[in-house]
Amino acid sequence: MIVAMQEKATEEQIDYVIEAMVEEGVEVHRTTGETQTILAAVGPTAALDLTKFENLPGVLKVHRISSPYKLAGKGFRPEGTVVEFANGVKIGGEKVAVMAGPCSIENEEQIFEIAKSVKAAGAGFLRGGAFKPRSSPYAFQGLGIPGLKLMFEAARANGLLVISEVMEISQIEPMLPYVDCFQVGARNMQNFNLLRELGPAKKPVLLKRGMAATIEELLLSSEYIMSGGNYDVILCERGIRTYETATRNTMDISAIPVVKKLSHLPIVGDPSHGTGHRDMVAPMARAAVAAGADGIIVEVHPNADKAASDAAQTLYPEQFEKLVAELRVIAKAVGRSI
Amino acid sequence: MIVAMQEKATEEQIDYVIEAMVEEGVEVHRTTGETQTILAAVGPTAALDLTKFENLPGVLKVHRISSPYKLAGKGFRPEGTVVEFANGVKIGGEKVAVMAGPCSIENEEQIFEIAKSVKAAGAGFLRGGAFKPRSSPYAFQGLGIPGLKLMFEAARANGLLVISEVMEISQIEPMLPYVDCFQVGARNMQNFNLLRELGPAKKPVLLKRGMAATIEELLLSSEYIMSGGNYDVILCERGIRTYETATRNTMDISAIPVVKKLSHLPIVGDPSHGTGHRDMVAPMARAAVAAGADGIIVEVHPNADKAASDAAQTLYPEQFEKLVAELRVIAKAVGRSI
Amino acid sequence: MIVAMQEKATEEQIDYVIEAMVEEGVEVHRTTGETQTILAAVGPTAALDLTKFENLPGVLKVHRISSPYKLAGKGFRPEGTVVEFANGVKIGGEKVAVMAGPCSIENEEQIFEIAKSVKAAGAGFLRGGAFKPRSSPYAFQGLGIPGLKLMFEAARANGLLVISEVMEISQIEPMLPYVDCFQVGARNMQNFNLLRELGPAKKPVLLKRGMAATIEELLLSSEYIMSGGNYDVILCERGIRTYETATRNTMDISAIPVVKKLSHLPIVGDPSHGTGHRDMVAPMARAAVAAGADGIIVEVHPNADKAASDAAQTLYPEQFEKLVAELRVIAKAVGRSI
Amino acid sequence: MIVAMQEKATEEQIDYVIEAMVEEGVEVHRTTGETQTILAAVGPTAALDLTKFENLPGVLKVHRISSPYKLAGKGFRPEGTVVEFANGVKIGGEKVAVMAGPCSIENEEQIFEIAKSVKAAGAGFLRGGAFKPRSSPYAFQGLGIPGLKLMFEAARANGLLVISEVMEISQIEPMLPYVDCFQVGARNMQNFNLLRELGPAKKPVLLKRGMAATIEELLLSSEYIMSGGNYDVILCERGIRTYETATRNTMDISAIPVVKKLSHLPIVGDPSHGTGHRDMVAPMARAAVAAGADGIIVEVHPNADKAASDAAQTLYPEQFEKLVAELRVIAKAVGRSI
Repeated sequence: MIVAMQEKATEEQIDYVIEAMVEEGVEVHRTTGETQTILAAVGPTAALDLTKFENLPGVLKVHRISSPYKLAGKGFRPEGTVVEFANGVKIGGEKVAVMAGPCSIENEEQIFEIAKSVKAAGAGFLRGGAFKPRSSPYAFQGLGIPGLKLMFEAARANGLLVISEVMEISQIEPMLPYVDCFQVGARNMQNFNLLRELGPAKKPVLLKRGMAATIEELLLSSEYIMSGGNYDVILCERGIRTYETATRNTMDISAIPVVKKLSHLPIVGDPSHGTGHRDMVAPMARAAVAAGADGIIVEVHPNADKAASDAAQTLYPEQFEKLVAELRVIAKAVGRSI
Repeated sequence: MIVAMQEKATEEQIDYVIEAMVEEGVEVHRTTGETQTILAAVGPTAALDLTKFENLPGVLKVHRISSPYKLAGKGFRPEGTVVEFANGVKIGGEKVAVMAGPCSIENEEQIFEIAKSVKAAGAGFLRGGAFKPRSSPYAFQGLGIPGLKLMFEAARANGLLVISEVMEISQIEPMLPYVDCFQVGARNMQNFNLLRELGPAKKPVLLKRGMAATIEELLLSSEYIMSGGNYDVILCERGIRTYETATRNTMDISAIPVVKKLSHLPIVGDPSHGTGHRDMVAPMARAAVAAGADGIIVEVHPNADKAASDAAQTLYPEQFEKLVAELRVIAKAVGRSI
Repeated sequence: MIVAMQEKATEEQIDYVIEAMVEEGVEVHRTTGETQTILAAVGPTAALDLTKFENLPGVLKVHRISSPYKLAGKGFRPEGTVVEFANGVKIGGEKVAVMAGPCSIENEEQIFEIAKSVKAAGAGFLRGGAFKPRSSPYAFQGLGIPGLKLMFEAARANGLLVISEVMEISQIEPMLPYVDCFQVGARNMQNFNLLRELGPAKKPVLLKRGMAATIEELLLSSEYIMSGGNYDVILCERGIRTYETATRNTMDISAIPVVKKLSHLPIVGDPSHGTGHRDMVAPMARAAVAAGADGIIVEVHPNADKAASDAAQTLYPEQFEKLVAELRVIAKAVGRSI
Repeated sequence: MIVAMQEKATEEQIDYVIEAMVEEGVEVHRTTGETQTILAAVGPTAALDLTKFENLPGVLKVHRISSPYKLAGKGFRPEGTVVEFANGVKIGGEKVAVMAGPCSIENEEQIFEIAKSVKAAGAGFLRGGAFKPRSSPYAFQGLGIPGLKLMFEAARANGLLVISEVMEISQIEPMLPYVDCFQVGARNMQNFNLLRELGPAKKPVLLKRGMAATIEELLLSSEYIMSGGNYDVILCERGIRTYETATRNTMDISAIPVVKKLSHLPIVGDPSHGTGHRDMVAPMARAAVAAGADGIIVEVHPNADKAASDAAQTLYPEQFEKLVAELRVIAKAVGRSI
């Protein structure tokens, strides 16, 4: 932590700030410039609450110097994290992971049909929602655990892994037998109680970036899971909220290289929620892989326009197939494969 | 719902869209302009999923015409909702409510001292966090129910009502005896499972706007609580996330007149979280009341700079006292009192 | 400037950065912590380009410590700037300034009628656009200098000062005889050539905050005018662009206390552009004054719904009159008058 | 235009709105639903000012149905615009254009060295600023026309085309002999006077998206140039302002497929300004091409860390060379070449 004093700060004010810093258990190094004094904290600064110093008399600004996360930082595992699943499939390695499926699990026929077709196109994971977070209480809310069971059977019948969203602590236990990877949705990225409970759950977690979350906050949220002993966290960029209305969200593709620089965790892109429009899903999936994403997660439905939710952003199976073919070429350009 | 067709849409495309609309149970009125055809849905449109029509061939854009919330809409209770508490205190009526207290409950001495001082200054509610949602897992996480109990005693000893944040469904039951009003924090505004469980809880709920939530989404979230039978919802503007960094959030004062126009629910302002800086709390509290807010909720601590959390945005008791005096004058200017 | 080195930075990297800093003419103070080294620049840091150090090997982050503006900073004139006009009217003093008039000057009758009515209600300035920046080339573009002349006559006939927007360097000269205050619109806040030419113009300038400008950038833009010798700059908050669509912009009321803290320049609020909706103009004007604004600028038109531009956000004269009456009471609450 | 009436609108209110619409020269089609009445305008609606209807009694909301731009719309040239330069180079066709060079032209040696190296790597255009818009008046402001002359010579000596930013109407004339393509910077995207003057200039214009501009506004700005007779407009995505601070701007890659859907104009990506960080330039350039961009524009400098401006986001020549090689592969994946 650095405390920059105002130009006209008095010696008395400077001493008062130094005392306050020492009281918090750090050593203080003072730099006196021509116009301004700077106080640097040396020692155990990670737990310091910077806001305590902001309003002290004579203080101009307080800067955090060290990063607020530890386990999620690049330095913790410079070689990068590779999440390995039971069947040997990996996320974070040389292969680009492909996760696909309907927004909501609707019925047995639908989910088996989709499982078969996404597998044929090259997917390794079947995605689908059993519990749906809907902004309106009057919208379809999902089939629950029975739906998840259907998806599990459809996945296993086709050699696919299962990923599905958990919305509530009470759902972790019943979901456990039927998922290979928990998904935490954007709206729950800072549901810290839920994150904490996913630490001991010992199944990989795909953590979506919140709609208004900074990348630093995404990493801090991953830290909640990791500090509980579960290091198999996969981050996911799914679009942030901006003033632009041509797309449902603004997919921040640059989050991919930023995460690669700051962290060892893998990151995948979700162009379905990232754009909200079917005809932008393929371009943005390609962009994500070109920027270095470790995978993509997309919505696919045999009768996309009649899907029970997210119809507008869901691909038809033939569009998905074409997309995977394009991704294979792009993956090669960045030294990867599908 | 209105479906605007592209200028070059064919008769075949128009017929296909009309059929798709009729299939969803609505009647279709067609307007054929010189250059463009418009299809209006008449009938039970509230449950229509607009996204189903966006990608149909020939469609330009789909517009929602009726509002997506029902119980929260102005029309449901044109006279406005007044939330009444056990001791006769009301929110939403002529009086402007004042809620004050520390960010976190720290210990018995602290909470009793604050209770006494905010009561003296004119507050009607004691606020304080027992469970703290912190973006870092390494930060202070609150005292839990024992802390809440202390706050309840401090409040009752001073004739104050208690408001405190609930973060998890499992906390509702144990909190119930010690709170007069549940607070749902910004990060949980779209934790729909939690909202649903607060319907049957039958205690007023103060619902904070999410950091990236539109006012429409805030109203939709209130609908989750109301559709469970609990109409005592108080909305709260606490700042939204923008690119500006001079303040912690950008407090959207205009949300106050917008809510007054669209809804019957009361709305209060939280200038502490809205700004993040002590010296902006008073100006923004005054602005909120001048704009028509039904109350304010502010952080106050006898030793603000040493507060266990949110130190930078916490008022000293004497600053709070001065603020309430200013608010009394402003309240008069808008036909209210404190 | 502070350069924070990465935890694993080598001595060689640290030396390289120190050399690069010295080369830019500053002295370097080094703080070696347990895990991290910090380098502080002492000396002429104002002109340093921070980005030159960001990518040097071993660098974690570069922090600006001193503020990037000089003339606009509080320290330059701690007592605050009061802009005085020919007729003795002041902005920035005890009085809250009221500027009102149509979005566009339309014709003689309109502007004389408005001048009379806003004067009667208590305005000191007549505002009106002669050149209109319109996002569509097909919209009404203004009457130009002949329109401005009409407004000047209408203002003088009623004892009002004139404020009008300048969009182009070539308009400064012809506008000069007919305005008491130039207005620079949000879209031109970073039209640096225009700002520079307003330095020698020696008439007060009302500088509106850009739709995506930070408060720091607004102050830097004022610096362009002031560094040309014109210190009579009045800042204006008129709403920033956010994801919220219920209002045309999000009026950042907190910019008022922030500017009061950082700068000596007066600041006024524009609730017409800030909200875009007639029924939110009065609440937000009240909020601005309650937060400490030195004035407000609002759109008023005798036939508001038929105004040639900005109809939806324009007040009827009787609404304006009622607003000024409310503002008189609120001004008193903050130690001011109208 | 569609006017949606409130549920409780009276017949009198509906009639009043219909009259107001008819008065503006359109025909009105009325749809009476169970709960709500909808009024559709048929006829010359392009010039309608929607805001005139928003506040009429009984009106709920006003929707624009037809797009506000004409010449920029896809329908105007469904086959797409291909901008052709004197030497036969095209933008918007099968080839992906590569524009590269320093942020600022600094001196003869620098610009000749860069011209040679970017040409060798595969660039077709030399970029470089002669007039620099800087947010601080104390920063380097560019060499002006003499600098531009040097760049022109360096470009021609290496078979490159020249692109450079115009900031002011008065610069158009003197720049004309030395540029093949004018660039309009983000801060001038809504400097409508400048745009209008570029219509008759008859040289291609690269128009950068403003930091807070929607894609619709970008298209409306291009309309200003096109309505002046100059159809050779190339759009450029260079990042928008969001709350994320890990990057200088948030590069909205989805703007590329959105523009491709709505317009016939070519669009290029600027990953240098889009990210502000050297190590994110290559990933985002790859993303842009993968998403379908017609070209990229990047900053390259032989001594990047010592560049007079934008050092942090400038590539070293060898990094640029590597990037172009990667782009050649990705271009192939989307049916293009470099």
